[in-house]
Amino acid sequence: MSFHLRQLTIVGVGLIGGSLARALRRAGVVDEIVGTSRNADHLQHAVDLGVIDRYDTDLAAAVQGADCVVVAVPLGAMGQVFRTIIPNLSDDAVVTDVGSSKASVVTAVEAACGELPNWFVPGHPIAGAERSGVSASFAELYENRRVILTPMASTASQATSRIEQMWQETGAEVVTMDIEHHDEVLAATSHLPHILAFGLVDTLAQMDEKQEIFRYAAGGFRDFTRIASSDPVMWRDISLSNRDAILKMLDRYFADLNQLRDMIESEDGTGMEALFARAKQARDEFAG
Amino acid sequence: MSFHLRQLTIVGVGLIGGSLARALRRAGVVDEIVGTSRNADHLQHAVDLGVIDRYDTDLAAAVQGADCVVVAVPLGAMGQVFRTIIPNLSDDAVVTDVGSSKASVVTAVEAACGELPNWFVPGHPIAGAERSGVSASFAELYENRRVILTPMASTASQATSRIEQMWQETGAEVVTMDIEHHDEVLAATSHLPHILAFGLVDTLAQMDEKQEIFRYAAGGFRDFTRIASSDPVMWRDISLSNRDAILKMLDRYFADLNQLRDMIESEDGTGMEALFARAKQARDEFAG
Repeated sequence: MSFHLRQLTIVGVGLIGGSLARALRRAGVVDEIVGTSRNADHLQHAVDLGVIDRYDTDLAAAVQGADCVVVAVPLGAMGQVFRTIIPNLSDDAVVTDVGSSKASVVTAVEAACGELPNWFVPGHPIAGAERSGVSASFAELYENRRVILTPMASTASQATSRIEQMWQETGAEVVTMDIEHHDEVLAATSHLPHILAFGLVDTLAQMDEKQEIFRYAAGGFRDFTRIASSDPVMWRDISLSNRDAILKMLDRYFADLNQLRDMIESEDGTGMEALFARAKQARDEFAG
Repeated sequence: MSFHLRQLTIVGVGLIGGSLARALRRAGVVDEIVGTSRNADHLQHAVDLGVIDRYDTDLAAAVQGADCVVVAVPLGAMGQVFRTIIPNLSDDAVVTDVGSSKASVVTAVEAACGELPNWFVPGHPIAGAERSGVSASFAELYENRRVILTPMASTASQATSRIEQMWQETGAEVVTMDIEHHDEVLAATSHLPHILAFGLVDTLAQMDEKQEIFRYAAGGFRDFTRIASSDPVMWRDISLSNRDAILKMLDRYFADLNQLRDMIESEDGTGMEALFARAKQARDEFAG
């Protein structure tokens, strides 16, 4: 049976939600796309761009009648959104989110519901860009990117299947894993690097020679610190939401980096060369 | 008086030395460019590419007659090169290098000479690329890039002036600073980031879920770890050569990162947001 949606409601029409809307419209699989957020100007802009068909700043009203709701708001806003939408969902509605950590979202949904529902499919598209907002959205964002779904024990298999089909329509590769594993993998490959980059730039910015230091930074530094240009509120929310997995990775990194520090201090050239070569090989294999 | 060289000898004809040769040839300011290294095949390739006019694998012979010698070899090879060339330099020769740390090169030159000479101008072009070797060299590499010169107390001002003019002919902006300051600035903006990136990739590569972890890494991780694809031997040499400044920066970073770790552990969202915002602002200002 081919995939089709009657009404898709997107809560938070930014880069992620807007690109999903564009991709599904391009695929011709949705009758009506409704946007909602607190900002009517942003939503009107999304209508003008053809990203959504209509909007409602009243969240409860916006989800009424939808057979699919995608919650694309910052992690810190999830609890409030779920408390509002739950009493207003259609009987046949399937709900997913796009948050970068999953245990915290499931906890928020459970608290809002009083139980783990069968209609919720936690999700996380591994995609993004430096720019944000609906103006930056584009239909191709998810092509050949991975979307991770972390269904709960309570999630209906039909619900998971619907969300999987939805993401496949965007050109994404959908994979499923358990919640804890998702949060550990993301802590390692995304959350820890962001924290290290924010931390490094802040360390340098506090130095007396700040202006001069940045003046002599070359391309490698620019690449390394690009992720420190990310949204501070979003990363505050992620750091709070995925605290345990992040602390675990950070401590592992501290321990390894201390060993490398010891090699430098003791002028252990052989040890350093072996470590750098091992890292280069892993990075080259990963990057293809 | 316009700048002109009779014979430029480049010791180590890779990306850096080869691009300098191409740029100076394009500027029409050098009569003959001689290349030298231990690898005749590489040197013949450089001749075939038109990068150098001729080569000599005998280092002592290659520098004879040169009025300018550029030493573009790894930091670990500097001592041996200087011991060989010093007895063979012309009376009017000016010598510079391209090493990423400067105190260690000056120490090597002083040891080879028995004193600090007046003909040596320590230098460091802040340029490079992921690729290496003479095949990757191009005449535009230094355009609008910075070249740092760190003349010693003993360096003749005419020597500094000659090397400054040489780099200006490539389109680079030449700045002068003292040796210790150079090494601190580079430790902060280049050496520390490389060590952090090598360390992170190595930490992840040692995890059981290595293959899976890298599979879910996105664009931000790719940028952040790009410098971990750098040459392990070069970075071993840099870590050994600029040990003290690197350890100083690393310890400062450890201390700051521990504060950030405490914020995450104690769920201090306000503190994190302030730190991330400060870092984002500094990074955005730097990157323009």
